[in-house]
Amino acid sequence: MTSPFPDRLARAIATKNSRVCVGLDPRPEMLPPPFADGVNGLEDVVGFCCNIVDATAEYAACVKPQAAYFEALAPDGLAAMWQVIEYAHRQDLVVILDAKRNDIGSTAQAYASASFGMHWRGSIAQADAVTVNPYLGCDGVEPFLEVADELHGGVFVLVKTSNPSSGELQDLDSGAGKVYEVVAGLVKEWGASRVGECGYSSVGAVVGATYPRQLAELRELMPQSVFLVPGYGAQGGGAEDVAAAFDDDGLGAIVNSSRGIIYAYRETGGDFQKAAAEAARAMRDDLNAVIV
Amino acid sequence: MTSPFPDRLARAIATKNSRVCVGLDPRPEMLPPPFADGVNGLEDVVGFCCNIVDATAEYAACVKPQAAYFEALAPDGLAAMWQVIEYAHRQDLVVILDAKRNDIGSTAQAYASASFGMHWRGSIAQADAVTVNPYLGCDGVEPFLEVADELHGGVFVLVKTSNPSSGELQDLDSGAGKVYEVVAGLVKEWGASRVGECGYSSVGAVVGATYPRQLAELRELMPQSVFLVPGYGAQGGGAEDVAAAFDDDGLGAIVNSSRGIIYAYRETGGDFQKAAAEAARAMRDDLNAVIV
Repeated sequence: MTSPFPDRLARAIATKNSRVCVGLDPRPEMLPPPFADGVNGLEDVVGFCCNIVDATAEYAACVKPQAAYFEALAPDGLAAMWQVIEYAHRQDLVVILDAKRNDIGSTAQAYASASFGMHWRGSIAQADAVTVNPYLGCDGVEPFLEVADELHGGVFVLVKTSNPSSGELQDLDSGAGKVYEVVAGLVKEWGASRVGECGYSSVGAVVGATYPRQLAELRELMPQSVFLVPGYGAQGGGAEDVAAAFDDDGLGAIVNSSRGIIYAYRETGGDFQKAAAEAARAMRDDLNAVIV
Repeated sequence: MTSPFPDRLARAIATKNSRVCVGLDPRPEMLPPPFADGVNGLEDVVGFCCNIVDATAEYAACVKPQAAYFEALAPDGLAAMWQVIEYAHRQDLVVILDAKRNDIGSTAQAYASASFGMHWRGSIAQADAVTVNPYLGCDGVEPFLEVADELHGGVFVLVKTSNPSSGELQDLDSGAGKVYEVVAGLVKEWGASRVGECGYSSVGAVVGATYPRQLAELRELMPQSVFLVPGYGAQGGGAEDVAAAFDDDGLGAIVNSSRGIIYAYRETGGDFQKAAAEAARAMRDDLNAVIV
């Protein structure tokens, strides 16, 4: 990983002609027949995730493992996640670890090392980028930026999340603008010295598809930040809702879908890999249709 | 664990006559000679933490393992943390897991299960309470409250953190009050139906010792919430700075110190357990002196 994260991501988007991010949310109760209920434990979960990676790699630019689901499996569940990340890299996918970590000082440094996969007792794999929560301010984010800089990695800061109650704090309006606008200002500032050849910085923003007006506004406020957009599909956002996130070259955003892809077989029936591939292909085409 | 979390905590505070929380932040480069640099890996780290638990159990009401440091050890580092939690429970300490998790919906549920130790593939131990980050609003916190309710556990919500830049977002002033005041209002609301016999609720607040004025104000806003107070000692807060958090019975808050206790031997020389015990004892007495 020697080129900056935004350039690696731009290359993946161009190569695949896809803005799709496949969310890897392994929930034991939703696994398809070959892995039903994960009777073989973590092995089944890793197997399922790797099968999803195989099925969707052609149609997706990146994958987003969700740390919560791996942590919930077992005390050593994160080890399974790192196996999946290692596998996804071998299939040439960009990996964004969704862990939303946050703390300060040396504790934030520890989270940053852990999130990027740089463990003290050796590393199974590296994440290309990680998500962080900005509630603690600069002290909480800068340690992640420093580790990202060393590893040519990226950081996606939660700005405006996709959930119904995201406005409770994020929309509070101060003299300096709404909270999410203040965060957007920080993201812009953090990214200013970290811009790759593609014109985007290594400091991205999480902006929900479920708030299209705010998404368009945030695009203006953070012209050099890649958007990681949750909320497409199952949460109700459509391709038109995210269209404003893309530039004229079709860069600037990746859109995540988790259960809509990986558990598509539950709606369609049939083989889970075929169902996932078809859902990823359809989402790719749906998004490409709104690119100017 | 059948009585509500605030009552268990109040009992531990009364029994030990201590408001001390020992922060377990295992950093390989800071381990004392018997475990220097953790040459035996996770085993050394677990050994060190358990030795600290033994040394300080007499002077502390609770311990606070910091997930970040365990995650940074190895892909399966959290398994070591659960061993330490299990050990601390056997020494009759209340355990607050500092993980600052946050997400929405079923993802937040997964984090809640994982943070309290209710893993799908079996549980090593349970945490008595966990910390959460409120940036996502109700959707991000309620799943933690629901799991806490089932397990008679507690949740500490980040309100006003101890770090220098905590004000960047937390102090933004909206028509509804400052962001941290809005969070305090939510904490009060979440706690209202969850009050134990001791008069405190199972929804606590993280409020830094480094902001004594805000701490006193927040005590008024959240009269039924236990405060988990970081920032004492190494970060600059003193006993007088946290005095306002306690009620007339000396309840209402626990004060955390991590490196000031567990790495005390680096300042004092000598046996690391004796140094930790002495630091915990001195902190206990320092805090008790400001209780009315």
